[in-house]
Amino acid sequence: MRISELARRSGVPVATIKFYLREGILPTGAARGATQADYDDDHLNRLRLIRSLAELAALPIAQIKTVLGLIDHPDADLFTTLGKAISALPPYVESGGGEHPRARAAIEHLGWTYDETFPATWQLERALAAVEEAGIPLTDERLDAYGAALHPMAEYDVAGAPGGAIDADASATGHPVIDRSAAERSAAARSAAVRYAVLGTALYEPVVVALRRLAHQDIAARRLGA
Amino acid sequence: MRISELARRSGVPVATIKFYLREGILPTGAARGATQADYDDDHLNRLRLIRSLAELAALPIAQIKTVLGLIDHPDADLFTTLGKAISALPPYVESGGGEHPRARAAIEHLGWTYDETFPATWQLERALAAVEEAGIPLTDERLDAYGAALHPMAEYDVAGAPGGAIDADASATGHPVIDRSAAERSAAARSAAVRYAVLGTALYEPVVVALRRLAHQDIAARRLGA
Repeated sequence: MRISELARRSGVPVATIKFYLREGILPTGAARGATQADYDDDHLNRLRLIRSLAELAALPIAQIKTVLGLIDHPDADLFTTLGKAISALPPYVESGGGEHPRARAAIEHLGWTYDETFPATWQLERALAAVEEAGIPLTDERLDAYGAALHPMAEYDVAGAPGGAIDADASATGHPVIDRSAAERSAAARSAAVRYAVLGTALYEPVVVALRRLAHQDIAARRLGA
Repeated sequence: MRISELARRSGVPVATIKFYLREGILPTGAARGATQADYDDDHLNRLRLIRSLAELAALPIAQIKTVLGLIDHPDADLFTTLGKAISALPPYVESGGGEHPRARAAIEHLGWTYDETFPATWQLERALAAVEEAGIPLTDERLDAYGAALHPMAEYDVAGAPGGAIDADASATGHPVIDRSAAERSAAARSAAVRYAVLGTALYEPVVVALRRLAHQDIAARRLGA
C-alpha cells in the first residue's frame, strides 16, 4: 500500500509517519519508482504499536526507541529485558542516591523481592514520602490489605503473558518454580512478552486507578444511601 | 509566629505564602503593627494541607480552591460533597457527551453503582478505549480478577475514614446499611471525611501503581530465576 493508505488505515497522519521513518523506528517501504514506497501489513502493525506507545502511553520518542529496541532485540535474559522495558515508562523518578528506606521496609514487610535498581522501588519511596508528609502514612495494616489485593492481580497479569514466555507455577507446593530455561526461549516469545508487559503496564494502570475510584464510589453510595 | 517562622516550619517559601494569602485560601494573620501579622497553628495546619494539595497532589490553584471550599463548607449531603471533591483531582477527562458504553458494561458486569456524571466513569471509558485500541481489550475474566482485588482494597480505605463519617456496615445480613442520617452528621466530621478522601485518593494512587509494578517484578523474579 502507499503511504496515504497506511495513514488512513493506521489513523496516523502522513507527516507523523514520515517523522517515524526519519527517526528510524518505522522501516522504509519497498522502493516503487523514484519517489514512492510500498508498505505492507508489517508496517501497519509496527505503526499501530508506535501509536499505542506514543499516543496512548504518552512515551517520549527516546523511550519509544528504547522499548522498540528491546522488542526487536530482546536480551536472552528475559527478566533483565522486562526490567529495562518497564524502566522506559513514566513516571521518570530519580533514584535519589541509593537509599530507599520506606520502600525497602514496605517490600520486606510483604516478603517481596527488593531491588534498589528498579525504578518502581524509587517510585514507591517517593509515593510513601508524600503520604507521610501529608500526615497519612502507610500503616502495616493498610500495606497488608493492599499487598493481599495487588499480588493476585499481578499474578493474573503475568499468567496472561503471551506464548508461555513467563511460565505458570507448576509446583505442587504452591511456590513459584524457578525456571532456568529463560536463556533458551525463542526471541519471538521474548519480544511478545516485552510488548505485553510494556503495553499492559502503561495502559492498564489508568484502568486500575479508575476502577479503584469507582469502587470507592460504589461503597460510599451504598453506605450513604445515595 | 511571624511569616518567616511560618515559612520555616511549613517548608513553604514566604513568597508562596503571600501568594496563598492573596488568593484568599490562607486566612490573614492577626494584625501586629502596621506591616506585620501573627500566625498560629491553625495557619500552619492549613498551609500544610495546601502544600499537600499543591505540591504532592499537583493540583492547580482553581482545584485547590474547590477542595478547600468543600472542606470549609461541606454540603449536608456527604456523598455529593465527596463526589465534587474527587472531581477536582486529575486526570481532567471530558465527559465526551454522555455515552460511556465500555465503562457502563464493565461497571454493570461487576454489579457496582453506575453513575455517568462521575468523572471516574469517563476516566474508565477512556482507559478502556485505549486498551482496546492497543489490541489488549479488557476481558470479563480480567475484569473479574481486578474487581475482586480492588473492591476489598476500597472497603479498607472507606473503613479508615476519620470520625466515623462514613459508617461501617453494621447489618447482620452482610449487606451495607443504607444510612439516612447523613444530613445530621457534624460539619467537622464531613470536613475530615472530604480531606481524607481527597488526599487518600490523590496520594495513594501512586502507592498503588508502584506496588502493582513491584508485584509484577516479584513474580517475574521468582518465575524467571533472577
